[in-house]
Amino acid sequence: MREVAIIGVGMNKWGELWDKSINDIFVEAALEAIDDAGVAHLDAMYVGCMSGGVFNGQEHLASLLSDYLGMGQTPATRVESACASGGLAVKSAIIEVMSGNSDIILAGGVEKMTDVTGDQATYALATAADQEYEVYQGVTFPGLYAMMARAHTHKYGTTRKQLAAVAVKNHANGSLNPLAQFPQKVTLDEVMNSVMVADPLRILDCSPITDGAAAVIVCSLETARKISKKPLVKVIGFGHATDSIALHSRNDLAALNAVKLAGERAYKMAGKKPDYIDLVEVHDCFTIAEIIVTEALGFFEPGKGGPAAEAGLTARDGKIPVNVSGGLKSKGHPVGATGVAQVVEVTKQLRGEAGKRQIKDARIGMTQNMGGSGGSSVVHILEKI
Amino acid sequence: MREVAIIGVGMNKWGELWDKSINDIFVEAALEAIDDAGVAHLDAMYVGCMSGGVFNGQEHLASLLSDYLGMGQTPATRVESACASGGLAVKSAIIEVMSGNSDIILAGGVEKMTDVTGDQATYALATAADQEYEVYQGVTFPGLYAMMARAHTHKYGTTRKQLAAVAVKNHANGSLNPLAQFPQKVTLDEVMNSVMVADPLRILDCSPITDGAAAVIVCSLETARKISKKPLVKVIGFGHATDSIALHSRNDLAALNAVKLAGERAYKMAGKKPDYIDLVEVHDCFTIAEIIVTEALGFFEPGKGGPAAEAGLTARDGKIPVNVSGGLKSKGHPVGATGVAQVVEVTKQLRGEAGKRQIKDARIGMTQNMGGSGGSSVVHILEKI
Repeated sequence: MREVAIIGVGMNKWGELWDKSINDIFVEAALEAIDDAGVAHLDAMYVGCMSGGVFNGQEHLASLLSDYLGMGQTPATRVESACASGGLAVKSAIIEVMSGNSDIILAGGVEKMTDVTGDQATYALATAADQEYEVYQGVTFPGLYAMMARAHTHKYGTTRKQLAAVAVKNHANGSLNPLAQFPQKVTLDEVMNSVMVADPLRILDCSPITDGAAAVIVCSLETARKISKKPLVKVIGFGHATDSIALHSRNDLAALNAVKLAGERAYKMAGKKPDYIDLVEVHDCFTIAEIIVTEALGFFEPGKGGPAAEAGLTARDGKIPVNVSGGLKSKGHPVGATGVAQVVEVTKQLRGEAGKRQIKDARIGMTQNMGGSGGSSVVHILEKI
Repeated sequence: MREVAIIGVGMNKWGELWDKSINDIFVEAALEAIDDAGVAHLDAMYVGCMSGGVFNGQEHLASLLSDYLGMGQTPATRVESACASGGLAVKSAIIEVMSGNSDIILAGGVEKMTDVTGDQATYALATAADQEYEVYQGVTFPGLYAMMARAHTHKYGTTRKQLAAVAVKNHANGSLNPLAQFPQKVTLDEVMNSVMVADPLRILDCSPITDGAAAVIVCSLETARKISKKPLVKVIGFGHATDSIALHSRNDLAALNAVKLAGERAYKMAGKKPDYIDLVEVHDCFTIAEIIVTEALGFFEPGKGGPAAEAGLTARDGKIPVNVSGGLKSKGHPVGATGVAQVVEVTKQLRGEAGKRQIKDARIGMTQNMGGSGGSSVVHILEKI
């Protein structure tokens, strides 16, 4: 198999971008990645987007975006796995470079979520759950994750304060990220007294509705060595797994098996263990998600994710820095873009370009992107060489 | 690069399947393909679906379907390129087998289109056009293809009768396909006097709204030689290209450049020319589409596609049999499934399993799947070895 590298990254300022279309947003991030990589040509494009159809009345998005990007004849593929669509776009590009069918590929992600009403956005996001068995009963995502939080509390004694500690940390990290949607710091009290959404999850436990895009340039390591002027970031492992979408089909609501499996596959491919990872960007769509994910990826024993967050083990100066970018919580969560933005952050960190939030001497970084309530997950491990 | 084969195919009876869910439909076709291939395990899954979101309120479809298929942990990716989503699922599976990351992959396609009203279906399909510039103006797909038919008539003198000849041929072929949605034969007079939809296109120039699925098992040729009990069908070429989605951005409305480019890429990879092809399944979403596509793929000179259809050159006993399955016109057009069903038909033909519509001694077959009004196209060339 051919070795693969990330040679360019781009991401715009996320937020409520009412003066820009989905096309504009994507092209901004894509051009930045192309410029960063210093390439003039793309062999192919992958676009992660969860629901251009429901949010924007626009399917056929990869063709449209390749055209708007001025790359009109490029083979362009949209991939979708709900909120893991971005991570899947990166993985798909890696596989195509491995195949030898293409050498230089843009993997981007985009979502334009704020042109619809809050009710419509809630409906659009609920399409990531099982329509027939879950959504039909009135379930929404805060409700699904609230059930997981209840189960985790019941099984392990996870506390309200531990959940809040995740939000406090991620907003502190996001305050150092000029591209974050909500860069303001929050306190434990503010989180624990914010408006209730789905008990025990309050508004400051939830990631926001966001417009945004991110893009990376994936290419063969051989070509990267020839053309890249930046520190080389190699893809040393990836994993992708699925699980039952519907919570009622799972044995344990306090675990995320797709994440565990995707992580194991990535560690195995990379020949690494959790101890080797210098930083990880995880899918904190809700505070409880970050806690369970850090357990599923092997950074902490099951049930120890909450105490670890409270003890500061996941802070920038902790045992394993988690979501130094601010995570979905503070940076924002344009669902199709999130998985790509995680790779952007880790690449910047490994290159030493992360400014005030730089993790010193970061050499190996991990990303974990997740669809729905854990029905799919994509993990990448990158190494500076 | 590793060589790739198709070792299993499945497709259900297409139509208005009101007593089945999108999950049921997909699983039927997938189980048939798995059974046909004689495999017990899948390394990965690709699902082509244009708009589970708008039609069914269901994104995250690949995870959901892998679960319903009883393959719950399998890496599963939904790919979308409007009506070319199915072809893209097959191409994506081929690339992953080439990469060595997986050995045995299910590539399926599905669309459940009849659970919404006609207006809603028209809206859902229009998401394959440029929402901001085309759909906003009230354009629908019959209108877009009617403009292309007008342009073709203006430039080359293509006649109303030539358009009708395509429908007559495809329904004659479909009458021999037990899985076709509309297997009845039609006459030139019936087509030319059917209800007007968008001048010059009448209802019998248009492919229908359909529920259906199709699936194939893609694997390395090396493994195929070990495990397959069927005649071996090798993938010898594929091509994928995009074009401007909006018609107003194109130089020539009477041509389909993404099809031409995808075809050229596939011919080059296979080392073949149009003369080598024994049969081709093309994307006849409207009769004019088949005419332009047969020109774009090099079977006829530009402008000669209409006369060729009228002269019977594309009939089962003609120079190049086109759409022996009945095509989208008679077989039906569940948009995400169509590109996969084309590969199902060609594989059956190359294996000699096509029953009454069998093309004698077929050795090399081609498929051409198309998104929107030609904004994307995927072409495959298969050979019996």
